[in-house]
Amino acid sequence: MKIIYSERHRLHHGEREMYRGQLVPCFEKPERAQFVYDAVKERKVGEILEPKEFPVSAIERVHAPRYIRFLEQAWDLWTAQGYTNDALPAVWSIRGHRDDIEPENFSGKLGLYSYDSGTPLMAGTWAAVKTGADIALTAQELVTGGERAAFALSRPPGHHAGRDFMGGYCFVNNAAVAAQGFRDHGAERVVVLDVDYHHGNGTQSIFYERSDVMFLSIHGDPRTEYPFFLGHANEIGNGEGVGYNKNYPLAAGSSNALWFDALGDAVRRINDYRADALVISLGVDTFADDPISKFQLREPEYRKLGAQLAALKLPTVFVLEGGYAVAEIGHNVAHVLQGFEDAGS
Amino acid sequence: MKIIYSERHRLHHGEREMYRGQLVPCFEKPERAQFVYDAVKERKVGEILEPKEFPVSAIERVHAPRYIRFLEQAWDLWTAQGYTNDALPAVWSIRGHRDDIEPENFSGKLGLYSYDSGTPLMAGTWAAVKTGADIALTAQELVTGGERAAFALSRPPGHHAGRDFMGGYCFVNNAAVAAQGFRDHGAERVVVLDVDYHHGNGTQSIFYERSDVMFLSIHGDPRTEYPFFLGHANEIGNGEGVGYNKNYPLAAGSSNALWFDALGDAVRRINDYRADALVISLGVDTFADDPISKFQLREPEYRKLGAQLAALKLPTVFVLEGGYAVAEIGHNVAHVLQGFEDAGS
Ligand SMILES: [Zn+2]
Ligand SMILES: [Zn+2]
Repeated sequence: MKIIYSERHRLHHGEREMYRGQLVPCFEKPERAQFVYDAVKERKVGEILEPKEFPVSAIERVHAPRYIRFLEQAWDLWTAQGYTNDALPAVWSIRGHRDDIEPENFSGKLGLYSYDSGTPLMAGTWAAVKTGADIALTAQELVTGGERAAFALSRPPGHHAGRDFMGGYCFVNNAAVAAQGFRDHGAERVVVLDVDYHHGNGTQSIFYERSDVMFLSIHGDPRTEYPFFLGHANEIGNGEGVGYNKNYPLAAGSSNALWFDALGDAVRRINDYRADALVISLGVDTFADDPISKFQLREPEYRKLGAQLAALKLPTVFVLEGGYAVAEIGHNVAHVLQGFEDAGS
Repeated sequence: MKIIYSERHRLHHGEREMYRGQLVPCFEKPERAQFVYDAVKERKVGEILEPKEFPVSAIERVHAPRYIRFLEQAWDLWTAQGYTNDALPAVWSIRGHRDDIEPENFSGKLGLYSYDSGTPLMAGTWAAVKTGADIALTAQELVTGGERAAFALSRPPGHHAGRDFMGGYCFVNNAAVAAQGFRDHGAERVVVLDVDYHHGNGTQSIFYERSDVMFLSIHGDPRTEYPFFLGHANEIGNGEGVGYNKNYPLAAGSSNALWFDALGDAVRRINDYRADALVISLGVDTFADDPISKFQLREPEYRKLGAQLAALKLPTVFVLEGGYAVAEIGHNVAHVLQGFEDAGS
């Protein structure tokens, strides 16, 4: 399959994030994408291409324009106040607080558009994020144009980013951008399947009231796992979207058998939906040795996952999400893609 | 007037808070209450009494029981995981995220019940906070019992704490607890007037749908000033509470003339309301030399404020809120109380 990649992800390299009451070095770092790039290249998974550039309006199909304006301008606004360190928010608009008025103050804006203090923003963030979305759109365009599958090797990840909020290292939701791209180029029904260890709260919230994009997620139970406040089994969609959102929260430490039971159910639902295209939010923090997660997948499971996704026989875009055991992340991703390729089309 | 105070506020002494992307020493520290204590003692503002102990149920009249359970247990839950540093949240339940399920994970709970990363929680927090509420209730009980006025010299402050959230150095809303105490002991209509530089977002949210407690706040415009997401002029209450919430957002740097215009309007509204009791959220971060705020009040203004409050001729409880120019905070508070006393009853 075609692989889309750009060195520009390196422009985003957060220094520190809040974790357990301290500022600690970011788990999400440029080496992650480098390891994936090295592994897919070494294993000859497919041709590696640069992304095309797309207009920001393609991103605004799933994100609020005022939020995207903020991301574009944030670093300039921040440094205009004399700061040179990474920007991290310190106050949030929670339940009962207003979100209809964008504060003039930078800290207010940053808080309005975020839900955690683990997502530092720096000089190159917007450039990297924009390129990440271009990568997802390039992958979608190739698949819309007839490719069986493509892999958007984008960074930072995207599935925690909502219509107007960042968090969980994510700013723009690359998977949602790709899914909307499919919709805007002929696909009537699109599925986003999220296999990252963490619930795709951003993706869910973007499509929660829509029936034209079905969202399914297999993840650590939000009762104990980040991001905590979405991802429960009884979130089934709202309005038009009722029945088109499906969560599989699994207890931390769940067996691979349980994980594949969930995948099997997801596959059945995707088949029933008669989708025209498939987007996979491919996080490999499901890896048994991942430092911050608690599932037990390894090479055989990743190959099996790839094979089961191939069996859906849908035009497919893979989008890179999480995965923090940096040394192994590349091989884990490659195993999924190779499992997909080896299953044939 | 009677002054209620306890040394137990010292049990709460946050180390660091997030501010502009860094962890910095907390602005809110034990010396604040010490300076106020020293000033009111030196100036013989009134007899200084220890608080009585009240049942937690008195606090739960304005706070969610599950939130109070969390505050009681938080330090034990946190240290049971092996941590010894102050707890600070890192992920929040913002718009679109759920708040009906309390996560089992400590970080999830802490994030559910907070809206900023500037409110560290430590071993003695609950003890200090509970005593702060007891101080407010002791002051209210004295005034209900016939005292003209009392000053709740409590710390940490309370006006940013909502029904089920902490933030802005606040955990339990002492002013709201006192106002509810008045209601529960015969007063039919109670006013909370908040003169802290920052909007009393917690107090507003607690009483927003009620007509039996009117809330008024004079504060820095939330478009540019913390806490950013509440405190606009068009927040007039909801349901039963429509017409019983009044905000006076003033531009940072506003003149004292503008500030007293707002106070004059507030005084007229309080008179029209025919209240039975008055609670003043007394922050003195309105001081011209306050390090984090931008109003221009000094001794003459503080005395004038006290006199105008006395002219309302209502049973009155003053509750200490913010004020960060620690050397002067005590005298600023004393000037308000002395202005009140000198105006006679
Ligand atoms: Zn993840
Ligand atoms: Zn204040």
